[in-house]
Amino acid sequence: MPHAIGIDFGGTTIKSGVVLDGVIVKRGPVIETQGSGGQQAILNALVSTVEQLRENLPDLAGVGIGLPGIVDTANGTIYELTNVPGWEGMPLAQWMHDRTGLHTTIDNDVNAMTYGEWKYGAARNGRHVFCITLGTGVGGGIILDGRLYRGAQLGAGEIGHMSIDYRGLPSPSGNPGGLEEYVGNREIAERAVALYAAAGTTRAAEQCTPRDLARLAQDGDIVAMEMWEQIGLEVGVALANVIWILNPDTVIIGGGVSKAGELLLDPIRRTIAARTTRLLHEKLRILGAALGNDAGIIGNAALVIDSAPAGP
Amino acid sequence: MPHAIGIDFGGTTIKSGVVLDGVIVKRGPVIETQGSGGQQAILNALVSTVEQLRENLPDLAGVGIGLPGIVDTANGTIYELTNVPGWEGMPLAQWMHDRTGLHTTIDNDVNAMTYGEWKYGAARNGRHVFCITLGTGVGGGIILDGRLYRGAQLGAGEIGHMSIDYRGLPSPSGNPGGLEEYVGNREIAERAVALYAAAGTTRAAEQCTPRDLARLAQDGDIVAMEMWEQIGLEVGVALANVIWILNPDTVIIGGGVSKAGELLLDPIRRTIAARTTRLLHEKLRILGAALGNDAGIIGNAALVIDSAPAGP
Repeated sequence: MPHAIGIDFGGTTIKSGVVLDGVIVKRGPVIETQGSGGQQAILNALVSTVEQLRENLPDLAGVGIGLPGIVDTANGTIYELTNVPGWEGMPLAQWMHDRTGLHTTIDNDVNAMTYGEWKYGAARNGRHVFCITLGTGVGGGIILDGRLYRGAQLGAGEIGHMSIDYRGLPSPSGNPGGLEEYVGNREIAERAVALYAAAGTTRAAEQCTPRDLARLAQDGDIVAMEMWEQIGLEVGVALANVIWILNPDTVIIGGGVSKAGELLLDPIRRTIAARTTRLLHEKLRILGAALGNDAGIIGNAALVIDSAPAGP
Repeated sequence: MPHAIGIDFGGTTIKSGVVLDGVIVKRGPVIETQGSGGQQAILNALVSTVEQLRENLPDLAGVGIGLPGIVDTANGTIYELTNVPGWEGMPLAQWMHDRTGLHTTIDNDVNAMTYGEWKYGAARNGRHVFCITLGTGVGGGIILDGRLYRGAQLGAGEIGHMSIDYRGLPSPSGNPGGLEEYVGNREIAERAVALYAAAGTTRAAEQCTPRDLARLAQDGDIVAMEMWEQIGLEVGVALANVIWILNPDTVIIGGGVSKAGELLLDPIRRTIAARTTRLLHEKLRILGAALGNDAGIIGNAALVIDSAPAGP
């Protein structure tokens, strides 16, 4: 098993590490995505990070980079990054190969996280896996028949834009009732503020982050507990729809919101059991993600290893 | 290209034929599924049909049988048939092989139809295909990466039980808002009766079949035209959700209700364009099924050919 470098290119920070058999054995410096210097500064920082991480590693399989947006995995080019302007059309994989001589792959960040959880995390031994990430946005990744499934335009898995109510809340995607309009970070905070107000309590949106609401619910706060019931119902409804279509053996709940643990998993499990047939849910595993913030680094490293051309 | 026998085992009738390169070159007699004599009479009729169809065919690849229910394609055993009691646990593939000496496969009827449309019908050249069938029930079949996708318990594709409104109409599946509760044959008739009544017209449910409503709408009947708009919206909403998850290149609309043609396809296409992003719908083909009632026979024949063990 060779080493590989995984790079998790996020909207806020870029994290990296050397991975051996699913374990990060060395970490690179954190790079600010929105820092001064723009794209050229980021590219320089990426190369110097790779050069630093590769020292004393003769058996390096390559570099895997995960990006928040739509990328062409086949030719290694970025189509578009969400919230990071200026990278459209950039042939990042070829560029990194030219600078470092290393085999480089790029992929979507949620795909990389899903792959990491499947190879080394909560979805190990799964054959048909759906992974949902709950954070500022809501995304999804799919493993089918033991392979990452990407779709015709590499756009598969977008559960955040799936509608749970076709006459529901308006969505920028054009699909009324899209899940993200109910359970994105900002939307959760806004709804919690309103629910507290209805209960006669004034609470600012900044005090209604998923972390705040989890702590409050654990302390017995009725409004926060009700919020997790609602979030679990809405996420569970969307997952039940995915389950009717894909009949997976494993569903993974990841992203920042999922740190609420059983407060979120319990209503999700109840909703899925109530809204799918026994055949589909009896053997289904519904689990929280296991690799946390490292899933991207680990997944990207696994992706470049599994894509590596056969050695001499 | 060898010949193969395809058998379409429906809840009402069993149809069969010899297929060569996607064309039915000889048809078997129609067998009544609910006729007197029960299971044993059906089994005898199946064998005599196969013996009759195989005459003078030295290059026969085998027999493919499609069934309305859940079947174990790997070992050729029936789990359960919808509306046809008494077949649970029947090892139909092995049984047919023992009686005829022919290689036999069994599969779900919607899977077989999907496979037929993909190999020889409207979904030819598709790589990622979703096929919806609209009839008494609403079902779906999936081709991904050029292979039939069945799911962990062989239960994938059930778009009829997918919810379009999580607080919507109750469903026997337990999933409120399930698509079938809106656009199944019987549900369409009931809704049309109510819509006519609201418009001051008395029309019996028997006069509100999809065929009746298509004829009425073609003659300019406002209520029937409104029914097709609603059906197209509801089917389109469910398909948009599938498209966000699977990003297919081809969507096929089949089953009896789809005979309404553009009355149904037009609002479906408009709904999908409005409710998905350009990347997902710009190159997407949304087409009516091309093989009609023969899709099952043709698909089952193709399935047994593609599963055939390598010859001597």
